[in-house]
Amino acid sequence: MRIGIVGGGQLGRMLALAAHPLGIRCTVLDPRANCCASDVAGLVQSEFDDVAAIERLASESDVVTFEFENVHLDALHTLKDSTLLPPLDALAAAQDRLTEKRLFRSLGIATPEFAAIDSIDALKDAIEPIGIPAVLKTRRMGYDGKGQFVIRDHAQIADAWSSLGGVPLILEGFVPFQRELSIIAARSRDGRIVVYPLTQTTHIDGILAESITPAAGVSDAMISEAHRAVSAVADTLNYVGVLALELFDCGDRLLANEFAPRVHNSGHWSIDGAACSQFENHIRAITGLPLGNTACLRPTAMLNCIGGVPPLEELAAIPNLRVHLYRKNPRPGRKVGHVTLSADSHEALERAIHPVRECIKQSAQH
Amino acid sequence: MRIGIVGGGQLGRMLALAAHPLGIRCTVLDPRANCCASDVAGLVQSEFDDVAAIERLASESDVVTFEFENVHLDALHTLKDSTLLPPLDALAAAQDRLTEKRLFRSLGIATPEFAAIDSIDALKDAIEPIGIPAVLKTRRMGYDGKGQFVIRDHAQIADAWSSLGGVPLILEGFVPFQRELSIIAARSRDGRIVVYPLTQTTHIDGILAESITPAAGVSDAMISEAHRAVSAVADTLNYVGVLALELFDCGDRLLANEFAPRVHNSGHWSIDGAACSQFENHIRAITGLPLGNTACLRPTAMLNCIGGVPPLEELAAIPNLRVHLYRKNPRPGRKVGHVTLSADSHEALERAIHPVRECIKQSAQH
Repeated sequence: MRIGIVGGGQLGRMLALAAHPLGIRCTVLDPRANCCASDVAGLVQSEFDDVAAIERLASESDVVTFEFENVHLDALHTLKDSTLLPPLDALAAAQDRLTEKRLFRSLGIATPEFAAIDSIDALKDAIEPIGIPAVLKTRRMGYDGKGQFVIRDHAQIADAWSSLGGVPLILEGFVPFQRELSIIAARSRDGRIVVYPLTQTTHIDGILAESITPAAGVSDAMISEAHRAVSAVADTLNYVGVLALELFDCGDRLLANEFAPRVHNSGHWSIDGAACSQFENHIRAITGLPLGNTACLRPTAMLNCIGGVPPLEELAAIPNLRVHLYRKNPRPGRKVGHVTLSADSHEALERAIHPVRECIKQSAQH
Repeated sequence: MRIGIVGGGQLGRMLALAAHPLGIRCTVLDPRANCCASDVAGLVQSEFDDVAAIERLASESDVVTFEFENVHLDALHTLKDSTLLPPLDALAAAQDRLTEKRLFRSLGIATPEFAAIDSIDALKDAIEPIGIPAVLKTRRMGYDGKGQFVIRDHAQIADAWSSLGGVPLILEGFVPFQRELSIIAARSRDGRIVVYPLTQTTHIDGILAESITPAAGVSDAMISEAHRAVSAVADTLNYVGVLALELFDCGDRLLANEFAPRVHNSGHWSIDGAACSQFENHIRAITGLPLGNTACLRPTAMLNCIGGVPPLEELAAIPNLRVHLYRKNPRPGRKVGHVTLSADSHEALERAIHPVRECIKQSAQH
């Protein structure tokens, strides 16, 4: 059995590492000969929009998947429905913030207020009902906080437009959330869904910095709502594989922010904290295997190494810390590794995280 | 950082898989182009006694280690002491059952009765004090029960000699043990030792079939004795890396059977059942990193897939089972994978193992 993965970054790397114990090998498609997934997978070296290369990847693979959502859709149209999982429609929905929000709304999933923006006049008109602050975002190709402008004052409207205008945009109400949450599900070829516990995520400069699973202090009603939302998205898209739904916890209600049609940074904890990781469950789902147990074994924290990694001797000296380095060249804002830590309780975890956070901070470049 | 591994079987494969998250890559030396470790490591394709190839492996590596003890010592003599870990002396001691037993005895570690045998007369002389049954073994190159003859009757002496004679032999008293145990330790470059809990092992036809960790019902005195024994062996050999000591539990005392200067099948449980696996601790030890936590998180069983693997769909459908396939071609008696299962108690584990054992049995060929 062989899986083709469009993209050879850390998600492809961790997918390939999860596939090996199942006796399944992966081939990644990436323009970089030294992409970090190529340490553990075969490589088709090509641009992402190279149709011939994607066909070659597919011809060497039983199923093709992708590790990032900004894949060129046109290049994937060449693949049969049964070969590309998750399906193209899911990818298309996730690539456009407007389509995505409309999808949520059609499924009865609450979202921040939003409006499509295609001119400065449309922006001026939308500001009134949506209110200030509001966030102007590109509809496509945004990630890690890129392609966003927070409008805090009417005087910034022109700046926001000149900074992002010219491509399709969306204006979203600024949500005074208490915290951010993420819920990850896997859906099998035969429509079964398993869901990981809710994860609390903390972003710095728009990039995920830390997560704690399970998120503490979430009501049963909110857990049910999150399960219903992620399951509805998965079912309606006839999804196969792992997907992540990011949510704002506003205290009295959850609002859906966006979903990612792939394994997700907020699920990295599961390699060490769950019986079956998000990576293994993605592999299981797309290859038609039964899905694995998503229960969290012990409260688990995940901390990203951004822009740099402390010396390995220091990380390895921290009791029970599990280290996951990606062998990527550090540069500011780039995720180059992560670590996880588990404990018997959230309180014990919070105490144990402190020195890890300090250790990682030394080498971080945001 | 790069590690060279002499041998590209499943132990090399699991070492390489444990090294990747630390950002460390491995190269294996093996005569087979499709050896199973080459899925996840670089390959120097050569015979094990090819000195030039071993030098090439060393030149590409920061440190060289091995995954099986029947390496050709002469070929490794070319390497500097600091390059080959564990050290050559440890390998030499483990390659010869007589040297090994004498080492145990010199360290005050109890062993079965034994005598060196180099003629049929020596065999006849030794049978009397050692008693019947006794086991005649080749001193070198034995594994998985190969190179052994159990003498149950004086009339078998001639048969035993004709079946094994001509190479240096050892006669060992047959130990009426209650069960077999294994203890695994890792020793760092600076002499620190960490020890995993005792593992109970069950062999079928001389091949490890199952293990349970921690072994139930072991007295504190026996645990101390096992720790003392494995630590004494490691210290006296100035050992660096993971080693396994196999023991007979005779109810009132432990007898040392043999040690393996490498990661060991009885430690496979640690990938899923310990904070830091034997594979990661071997990597940490030989690269000079601090050693990781060896505590067993929950009672964990390991079952080998011997000679065949059940369909992956069946294995993946067993709740909480973790699957480790090696991508080796099945043949009778060959280890081609293993699975692990953890539970909250030994009782719960014993109940949960039963269907796994049945599932694996279908495809096994001993």
